[in-house]
Amino acid sequence: MTSELQIEELYNFIYPLAVRAGEILLEGYNNAGKSVALKCNEFYNVVTDYDNEIEEYLISNILATYPTHKFIGEEETAKNNNVSKELTDAPTWIIDPIDGTSNFIKQIPHVSVSIGLSINKQIVLGIVNNPAQNKVYTTKLGQGAYCNGKPIHVSSCERLQDANVAYEVCLLHAAKIRNKHIKRIYYVGSQARRLVGYSAVVDSLCMVAAGNLDAFHIEDMYPWDCAAGYLLIREAGGVVTHPYGGAFDIMKPDLICASTETLRLEIEQLIRKADQAKSVGQEE
Amino acid sequence: MTSELQIEELYNFIYPLAVRAGEILLEGYNNAGKSVALKCNEFYNVVTDYDNEIEEYLISNILATYPTHKFIGEEETAKNNNVSKELTDAPTWIIDPIDGTSNFIKQIPHVSVSIGLSINKQIVLGIVNNPAQNKVYTTKLGQGAYCNGKPIHVSSCERLQDANVAYEVCLLHAAKIRNKHIKRIYYVGSQARRLVGYSAVVDSLCMVAAGNLDAFHIEDMYPWDCAAGYLLIREAGGVVTHPYGGAFDIMKPDLICASTETLRLEIEQLIRKADQAKSVGQEE
Repeated sequence: MTSELQIEELYNFIYPLAVRAGEILLEGYNNAGKSVALKCNEFYNVVTDYDNEIEEYLISNILATYPTHKFIGEEETAKNNNVSKELTDAPTWIIDPIDGTSNFIKQIPHVSVSIGLSINKQIVLGIVNNPAQNKVYTTKLGQGAYCNGKPIHVSSCERLQDANVAYEVCLLHAAKIRNKHIKRIYYVGSQARRLVGYSAVVDSLCMVAAGNLDAFHIEDMYPWDCAAGYLLIREAGGVVTHPYGGAFDIMKPDLICASTETLRLEIEQLIRKADQAKSVGQEE
Repeated sequence: MTSELQIEELYNFIYPLAVRAGEILLEGYNNAGKSVALKCNEFYNVVTDYDNEIEEYLISNILATYPTHKFIGEEETAKNNNVSKELTDAPTWIIDPIDGTSNFIKQIPHVSVSIGLSINKQIVLGIVNNPAQNKVYTTKLGQGAYCNGKPIHVSSCERLQDANVAYEVCLLHAAKIRNKHIKRIYYVGSQARRLVGYSAVVDSLCMVAAGNLDAFHIEDMYPWDCAAGYLLIREAGGVVTHPYGGAFDIMKPDLICASTETLRLEIEQLIRKADQAKSVGQEE
């Protein structure tokens, strides 16, 4: 068990770095608007530059104070030492320097820096900075969730027919998982009050924590997309499980998160139905 | 042909009313956050109250100065006189007091007041106020499109594989049109770089005009969802047609809008394919 004092020390250490990381992100976000003449592939170079800059800023500062700490992140950018493939008991920072890269490029305000910390294989703190919306989400294990210092809570939604649900519909782009997702989109989207999709996993998780969304389902993502958001939702009173129920695994972060267990279970049952359907869209 | 002078006069008249309408909307949007204890149906009463307040504010002020002007809007709220079902040559205001009602309730910043004006069956001016993002989009026929006074332009995107495309995936909730939309979502979403969905028609149109999105396809909507946004996109250099090609009809505003004709045509061809598909999601 990690002590509250240890968490507090690490939170106070990382908070100003997360704020500064958001400033770097915002600089790139604002510059994107000046680059309308850039072609698409050039845009992606701009993302990579800022992605690297934010990650290196965070990792180098963490290592300067805590040289034994480990990291989990996108390997190609995290060329530093101490990068883990597996979660150990050691303090491990799980970082996404820019989540929502297409939003970053296009100046759509669903874009975040996400920082989670695992100790003894448990996420103990999370900070998400969305500077385009001027929102910093923070959480420490057992101590609630906050946005800009004010407590946040999940909604009280219990029925899918009343629920605003996010789904990463952009995953249809990936051929291997397309059929699975179109069937789930059909089943969940048919029953939800509103299905939306932001192409922004971290921001969607934060929106569930803050009650803007009632539920979110994601598969085929990475630990750094979900570490901070997972703890934010738990600490805001929400539920997070594997899509088929059972414990959430940060290293294979397939999940349903929702404001209430009743709502989560309704989504799980539709996902199970969808996975058994042969196809969707056929007139009867 | 409506004279530039006439358009200018009407623009100068409506602009301050559109600004004030956005202030009323923002008041309701901010209050939504204080109402977390409300049940879903109570939330919708709050929307209706603000919807009525904004519409009555606009209509009563327009009629006080222009008593012969006509209106097209949701009939149940527009209990006023002068409400048309058909577009005539008379000056006709096409108003959506709150577009993105679920976002309004949940404090998600994709929410707008939309005001278009038709004269001689032609949209001659449009103002969209999204106060949650502090953005006022304005346009006059033949005079370009603006956001907060600065010129905006559509993107230069020509290929769907590079495009950020919005789709109202929330339409899956409606049983009668579900099969059509799931097939189109599958076909367009498979080829687009990113498919997103904001449950906000007006804001999505504005995002195409401003280059945040590259394309948007919508069917089964109303004139007030599309009047101002249509002109914004045209004046920002984009293309707007019926989904099967051919002229856009404001009274039955099914549309594809895109930054370029090349991109628009690629989406049209996929919609035609989707409509011929029996079903989607089946493993081969």
